[in-house]
Amino acid sequence: MSDLVKATIDKVEGFKVAGVHAGLKADGALDMAIIYSDYPCAAAGVFTTNKVKAAPVLVDQEILAKNNTHIRAVVVNTKCANASTGQQGIDNARQMARWAAERLSVAEDEVLVMSTGVIGTQLNLEKIKHGIDLAAESLGDDWDAAARAIMTTDTRPKQASLEWKGASIAGIAKGAGMIAPNMATMLGIVVTNGSVSPELLQKATNAAADKSFNRITVDGDMSTNDTLLVLSNGRGTDISDSVSSLVEWVCTPLAKAIVRDGEGATKFIVVNVQGAESDADARQIADTIATSPLVKTAFYGGDANWGRIVAAAGRAGVPFDPDKSALWVCPGEVVSAAPQTVSRDGETYTYVPPQSLQLFGNGVPLNYSEAQAAEIMQSPDITISLTCGLGYGQSTVWTCDLSHDYVSINGHYRS
Amino acid sequence: MSDLVKATIDKVEGFKVAGVHAGLKADGALDMAIIYSDYPCAAAGVFTTNKVKAAPVLVDQEILAKNNTHIRAVVVNTKCANASTGQQGIDNARQMARWAAERLSVAEDEVLVMSTGVIGTQLNLEKIKHGIDLAAESLGDDWDAAARAIMTTDTRPKQASLEWKGASIAGIAKGAGMIAPNMATMLGIVVTNGSVSPELLQKATNAAADKSFNRITVDGDMSTNDTLLVLSNGRGTDISDSVSSLVEWVCTPLAKAIVRDGEGATKFIVVNVQGAESDADARQIADTIATSPLVKTAFYGGDANWGRIVAAAGRAGVPFDPDKSALWVCPGEVVSAAPQTVSRDGETYTYVPPQSLQLFGNGVPLNYSEAQAAEIMQSPDITISLTCGLGYGQSTVWTCDLSHDYVSINGHYRS
Repeated sequence: MSDLVKATIDKVEGFKVAGVHAGLKADGALDMAIIYSDYPCAAAGVFTTNKVKAAPVLVDQEILAKNNTHIRAVVVNTKCANASTGQQGIDNARQMARWAAERLSVAEDEVLVMSTGVIGTQLNLEKIKHGIDLAAESLGDDWDAAARAIMTTDTRPKQASLEWKGASIAGIAKGAGMIAPNMATMLGIVVTNGSVSPELLQKATNAAADKSFNRITVDGDMSTNDTLLVLSNGRGTDISDSVSSLVEWVCTPLAKAIVRDGEGATKFIVVNVQGAESDADARQIADTIATSPLVKTAFYGGDANWGRIVAAAGRAGVPFDPDKSALWVCPGEVVSAAPQTVSRDGETYTYVPPQSLQLFGNGVPLNYSEAQAAEIMQSPDITISLTCGLGYGQSTVWTCDLSHDYVSINGHYRS
Repeated sequence: MSDLVKATIDKVEGFKVAGVHAGLKADGALDMAIIYSDYPCAAAGVFTTNKVKAAPVLVDQEILAKNNTHIRAVVVNTKCANASTGQQGIDNARQMARWAAERLSVAEDEVLVMSTGVIGTQLNLEKIKHGIDLAAESLGDDWDAAARAIMTTDTRPKQASLEWKGASIAGIAKGAGMIAPNMATMLGIVVTNGSVSPELLQKATNAAADKSFNRITVDGDMSTNDTLLVLSNGRGTDISDSVSSLVEWVCTPLAKAIVRDGEGATKFIVVNVQGAESDADARQIADTIATSPLVKTAFYGGDANWGRIVAAAGRAGVPFDPDKSALWVCPGEVVSAAPQTVSRDGETYTYVPPQSLQLFGNGVPLNYSEAQAAEIMQSPDITISLTCGLGYGQSTVWTCDLSHDYVSINGHYRS
């Protein structure tokens, strides 16, 4: 299905967007966006689980608790996260929604707000108001501008869209740093003209977030602002039967794009764990590998350091036995780097991914070709599969390497 | 008490040591050590909790289970961790102990072994045998050589010693990378001529490890080889009453020295959390802050980024309310960067650490001097205190910053 997903957005029936320069970014870059719907939308949201929640997160949660049936717009600013800003921050987030509502001639509780950027500074309201005015005047189909306008340290805009039986579904996202499972510094906005109830949309949004944005990690940190909003204006076909898949199919490439564009990332790494005692155990092992600084620096250095991977698995805090484990690596993004046995027409086939190489098995390293391993490690996309031999639990997470640039970017972010 | 602890070791009655070049390191540096006792020792050990345990860890656990009353020697090699080496690794670790026992004229089950270095390669037995021969011939009081001989990516040897009521206690350690709470890639050997039962020595060793080596984190990774061994030959005074404190006083500066010499570390950071609901919660918050790449890169960059610290606390998974919290920072290594109220002679005093600065309180940043904050962040030692306002739980961990050099060292460790 994911072959049908495009990395651009043409148009979604009934939605208009704009990305403008309000003056928040010093360099003239786009820094505010509005996503507007001509019709009332069913709306769903997934928010950071950090106990430190930004003002826009608190305001959106309050709005959605009262109104998830007729949302009309989302207004977004970058450069300032409006987090750790106290009551004034809450008041400012509401003011931002109010101005957008006035300019768009909708009610205040029909507008959701999102902010991303530095923590602890108040919004520059004058510039926010100016940005809302500009955006409201330039609403159209320039999704690329909207995607660019929500970027912070992102180097590329992130878009995905899909047509499915007469319904369109499209999304934009931003990420870059502070990315971790459980929704890290990412903002995502998905819209569809498909028809679905708010309850089903919320379920689909939760499920899609679990399979996409919650599977990515750049640095294990989780932000105060993470928000995924999904709006359905119901003008197109009924998508009730397929809404979970549709939201997931749009969110998955957006989530992967965030990892590929992670701060300082030079490699995209699929961490696939199979044969753990449970899916939860597999996830725990995969997360521990994917957030290990030693593993991530080894990938950066192009070193097939299976020892660090196996040692990370060993400290994951769940059952793991190196003597029953095996580790495989292959270039490219595949479901599994290890051979997979499949049954078809009563026959059993073993599928071996191209160029896959076993590094470790039964507690000891194999006598593999270091040259071949080094070549695989030079690939921009790498899949590793750790088979645990304990059960049927499996999980996959997506991560990137840890580079000099990550340290440079985050050692000097505020300056 | 810790004023009495020296960073050198003169001599411990009844113990002899040696550090030699066996040929394992290419550059002629010391790479094997023997710690030998003229008399049978009570012995205690604390080992990695990683499910992937190196051969010497498994062998030592087996020996200590049978014999913790008459240990005579510890033999240590660097460059090869003898981990993920299967049955051959176990056999080689036993061979290493056997050769040392022969050369020292003691029984095989009276010798403990330690290895540190790269995972997954077998020991070079010829060089190991040569190193044992050399070390056995040069036993004496050169603790500095022994401390140097167990180094891997460490840049400095780590020693500590203490005289207490007629007993000597002394220790050496190595660390550098893969350092995390729960005993990471560190080796520590502590010896005393004080007299104490093996049971009490084991309890003291567990308690001391919890208060020293288990409070440090360089990168959150945990190694396959971590081992702390404590030997008591009983020739001096009875230390039963004070053994926990004595082992802790020697282990604490060794643990801090490991963090100060962490891979790429440019700053030593005390992370102190107070007022959590429980000590365990405080520890969880402190650990989350201390292992956050965003926090650690901010310290590297000299940025008083309270937002990342508070956001890390918010994702620690335990109760935390930013509106009740406050964050203080001060230069130097102190118990708390926040003002402390103490009672003396019926009067209450508030002690404010020199140059301490409050950055955050009641959910918002304070209007502090950025210049003063920047000056504090230039200090080689920095203490941060986060008060949570929820209860009486407290915890302190020690960490270092995350620098370009960390990435360089770990991106190219095997090459």
